[in-house]
Amino acid sequence: MDRKIGFLGMGIMGRAMAGNLARAGHEVIVYNRTVLRKEELESMGVSMAPNPRMLADQADFIIAMLTGPEAIEALIWGPEGAGAAFNGHKVFINMSTVSPRYTRELAARLAPTSVRFIDAPVSGSKKPAEDATLVILAGGRQQDVEEATPLLLTMGKKVVYCGAVGQGSMMKMAVNLLLGTMMEGLCEAATFAAKGGLAVDTFLDVVSSGPLNCALFQMKGDMIRGGEFPAQFPLKHITKDLKFVVDTAYETGAAIPAGHVLLHLYRACVARGLGDLDFAAVMEILREMGGSH
Amino acid sequence: MDRKIGFLGMGIMGRAMAGNLARAGHEVIVYNRTVLRKEELESMGVSMAPNPRMLADQADFIIAMLTGPEAIEALIWGPEGAGAAFNGHKVFINMSTVSPRYTRELAARLAPTSVRFIDAPVSGSKKPAEDATLVILAGGRQQDVEEATPLLLTMGKKVVYCGAVGQGSMMKMAVNLLLGTMMEGLCEAATFAAKGGLAVDTFLDVVSSGPLNCALFQMKGDMIRGGEFPAQFPLKHITKDLKFVVDTAYETGAAIPAGHVLLHLYRACVARGLGDLDFAAVMEILREMGGSH
Amino acid sequence: MDRKIGFLGMGIMGRAMAGNLARAGHEVIVYNRTVLRKEELESMGVSMAPNPRMLADQADFIIAMLTGPEAIEALIWGPEGAGAAFNGHKVFINMSTVSPRYTRELAARLAPTSVRFIDAPVSGSKKPAEDATLVILAGGRQQDVEEATPLLLTMGKKVVYCGAVGQGSMMKMAVNLLLGTMMEGLCEAATFAAKGGLAVDTFLDVVSSGPLNCALFQMKGDMIRGGEFPAQFPLKHITKDLKFVVDTAYETGAAIPAGHVLLHLYRACVARGLGDLDFAAVMEILREMGGSH
Amino acid sequence: MDRKIGFLGMGIMGRAMAGNLARAGHEVIVYNRTVLRKEELESMGVSMAPNPRMLADQADFIIAMLTGPEAIEALIWGPEGAGAAFNGHKVFINMSTVSPRYTRELAARLAPTSVRFIDAPVSGSKKPAEDATLVILAGGRQQDVEEATPLLLTMGKKVVYCGAVGQGSMMKMAVNLLLGTMMEGLCEAATFAAKGGLAVDTFLDVVSSGPLNCALFQMKGDMIRGGEFPAQFPLKHITKDLKFVVDTAYETGAAIPAGHVLLHLYRACVARGLGDLDFAAVMEILREMGGSH
Repeated sequence: MDRKIGFLGMGIMGRAMAGNLARAGHEVIVYNRTVLRKEELESMGVSMAPNPRMLADQADFIIAMLTGPEAIEALIWGPEGAGAAFNGHKVFINMSTVSPRYTRELAARLAPTSVRFIDAPVSGSKKPAEDATLVILAGGRQQDVEEATPLLLTMGKKVVYCGAVGQGSMMKMAVNLLLGTMMEGLCEAATFAAKGGLAVDTFLDVVSSGPLNCALFQMKGDMIRGGEFPAQFPLKHITKDLKFVVDTAYETGAAIPAGHVLLHLYRACVARGLGDLDFAAVMEILREMGGSH
Repeated sequence: MDRKIGFLGMGIMGRAMAGNLARAGHEVIVYNRTVLRKEELESMGVSMAPNPRMLADQADFIIAMLTGPEAIEALIWGPEGAGAAFNGHKVFINMSTVSPRYTRELAARLAPTSVRFIDAPVSGSKKPAEDATLVILAGGRQQDVEEATPLLLTMGKKVVYCGAVGQGSMMKMAVNLLLGTMMEGLCEAATFAAKGGLAVDTFLDVVSSGPLNCALFQMKGDMIRGGEFPAQFPLKHITKDLKFVVDTAYETGAAIPAGHVLLHLYRACVARGLGDLDFAAVMEILREMGGSH
Repeated sequence: MDRKIGFLGMGIMGRAMAGNLARAGHEVIVYNRTVLRKEELESMGVSMAPNPRMLADQADFIIAMLTGPEAIEALIWGPEGAGAAFNGHKVFINMSTVSPRYTRELAARLAPTSVRFIDAPVSGSKKPAEDATLVILAGGRQQDVEEATPLLLTMGKKVVYCGAVGQGSMMKMAVNLLLGTMMEGLCEAATFAAKGGLAVDTFLDVVSSGPLNCALFQMKGDMIRGGEFPAQFPLKHITKDLKFVVDTAYETGAAIPAGHVLLHLYRACVARGLGDLDFAAVMEILREMGGSH
Repeated sequence: MDRKIGFLGMGIMGRAMAGNLARAGHEVIVYNRTVLRKEELESMGVSMAPNPRMLADQADFIIAMLTGPEAIEALIWGPEGAGAAFNGHKVFINMSTVSPRYTRELAARLAPTSVRFIDAPVSGSKKPAEDATLVILAGGRQQDVEEATPLLLTMGKKVVYCGAVGQGSMMKMAVNLLLGTMMEGLCEAATFAAKGGLAVDTFLDVVSSGPLNCALFQMKGDMIRGGEFPAQFPLKHITKDLKFVVDTAYETGAAIPAGHVLLHLYRACVARGLGDLDFAAVMEILREMGGSH
């Protein structure tokens, strides 16, 4: 494939993903609101466009991995935005995590440009992005997704077709609802164990030995043992995602009793200044409510 | 080891566990309130005592795997109960799931008999009981647990020492709090996905591909796909365990916001007649509340 | 005061309020998307404008009592909308219940017209609207609110100044959070009493005799006794308000653990088809979850 | 009526109630585990028995107003306990707040003495006890309750017959579930208002002007305004009552989604050292979770 790829957003995820695209032999042009140093670009094997419009002008596939609607609005619809260069020969793939509703609104506004739009958020954070083992949740016309699949597979290990545009985001919400539940669940049970006089270490060992064991718990065990929560997936991000979940459930009528409790708890953590820590820091508020220090 | 083992309770779990003890070469006498057929006893390789007292008279280790306090009261303290034969040369191992509080009360009442008491509930249900891959959560004097460990390892793959008597039950509660959370969490996210127009099958696939994947979800996937919930772990049992959890948290002061929601939900399932189904049937109430049929 | 009043929205509330304005001697022109019959207008003592723009052209005060943002958008900003006639000599009073966020956005969009904007949602429903005993929760410039107060007092018994534009809506949300809590609380306690074998009638009597007694409970007692819920305040409206509350709390960081549960419960009632009943029908889902019929 | 009354328990409530009985012309003997000073007894117009048994020996009606099961066990069944003097000519009225389950167990244990047992907890705290305006919630044989009613009406303004023994306690639980909900609801809405930039004072004023106004909110308004919570009804007591509610709902199957959240919140307050403050101090944990100080 000798198609050119434009990549918007050089955060932790974006850099890793663009690097994997370049390493797979694709020509990759990137854009970021804060400029990258020349050595960084060279080490990634990519070049930098002066603005999103010129990036989109040259690219066949335009990929966005941005922090949210505000950044998408700026880079697609703002001055020198990519949207001005969109047409029916180009494919626009939004891999940023946004709500299903925003995705559908975006699709409606993109329609006049005829661009082929895919929403493709990912399951997995920094490590899977670097290792190209992300699971990519794709919504859009099936034919468009099939055409993009080889490209997507240079960034991930699996592409799951979820349905029409917006359904990639819907799947991401469903997965993150479960993610938020399991993380809080582990912390709640660990707090319960500790208050009952058990060693948290022993509790985590027991969980590891049985049918509840999973990679998430392996990754977070040391944080819970040590009480330090350096961000892998920042708590403020799961909080934002759970707000999308609550908004979506309100629209569809899905009953999410635990989801409501989780939004309440994670939001309270943000209010208490824990938003930049890893989301395992939900442990802190549970400990505090139980009167521990 | 040529010590005799007495086993009280021949339910699904008890039969599998007593069978494993006999297969390992131990002499096993059993007692059950409803009499077992001769062929059953022979196929298991065990003999039947006429009452708990005579069982305890002959045994060095007395193991109970019963449905709860009511059965324990009857078989230990009732007429011809095992308690009358307890003494300082015998070890009594309660593997039934009961609350930490009941366990400590039982310990206090057993003290005058001098029997060496271990509380050792298990993590794992029918299949691990049959395969002798249970994880055994033991509380008691460390020396007593060490002495019983070889015996316990003929029924399970791992013995975890949790602390003084009652702490085995405490650990079981902590694990089952997480178990109840994860089961409800999977069902809630699946319901959310379905109400959002996603195929539940695809959702379960995505979960299986990522860091949330665990043996529990593999076991329950087909139930959720098919909407049939034959009991592996009956919903009424997790409900009872979550009540123990809420009682224990009230005593210790542990904050369990999700635990409260879970007790409410599973108890509502029991009220609606779902108690004898597998606990994955919590899916049903979530679907109903969302207006689905 | 010989100023003319334009009133947008002739629903249950709007008719009662416009009627009170006319009865107080004001000249009132009304507009409604579905036309009112001549006799109705005459009995109210008002005349009808052909469109919102012509209404606003003639009026000094323009009052809106509409179902929500969609209707406001249409009548203010749509073709022949009132907004086109707004200027710095006119006062626009939105008495519809909308979110603080929408109110602030509306204020920003109204700024270029120089219209003096007051947000003034009301506490109270049909009966107080008819009796002119509404409590009016006003946000805006203090001077504007003071000038409008005599007019507002022909529709209500009290005007409470809540702060800058948006704070009237914020106060409405706070009051309706408490309203939703108390209604659900009464139903939950009544269900609990009934499941415990008490007569619901006796329970309501006890509540009426003590410090929890309030006009709300007096109004809803008969619904709870009889199990019929003709709408005074439709359940779908409290549901919408609680969504505003959850959205607002997410922005401000307020911790609303009960608010989350309430949104979940009322939304589930809507999903089950109870949205057009009175919000006391939250009783139904509590009864159902408890296995009663 | 020249019958003698024995009164067990001279706490804040008991003193006020026994004083009202004496003032009404009854002969009252009291007992308390810590001895009262002579002047206190004289000012109340009562005399003190050396132990509960001698008190019960002389009295026709024995009334208990104690802190809970532990005190009841000691004074009824302990050494020189009142139970030893119970017979079919005496009436025993337990006005302490205990669970319906404990009340029924107590009734079963009292049966052999033939004493006529009434459970009669009260709605109302210190002030209504002093003013003899308590609402008395009575369970027992209807004839017994009718006979005791004139006596009870010297301590309260109303006696409500709730059904068989245990139903007085059941009613008390139902009322306190609502009480706990309304108190938390007021604090949650006030916190929400404050985080939204409203003056709490204005919010309380609005509540006072409308259909949610009740004596409870009048009593607690100053605590919420001032942030000081001197105990009228200690937070640890509502916490204990809500545990009874959760236990009872678990038995009956009543769905109490808010009740679970409330137990969680009030219990967390106790864990944080707020148990001896008034239950309006639930405000504190809501403020803290919202990141306020």
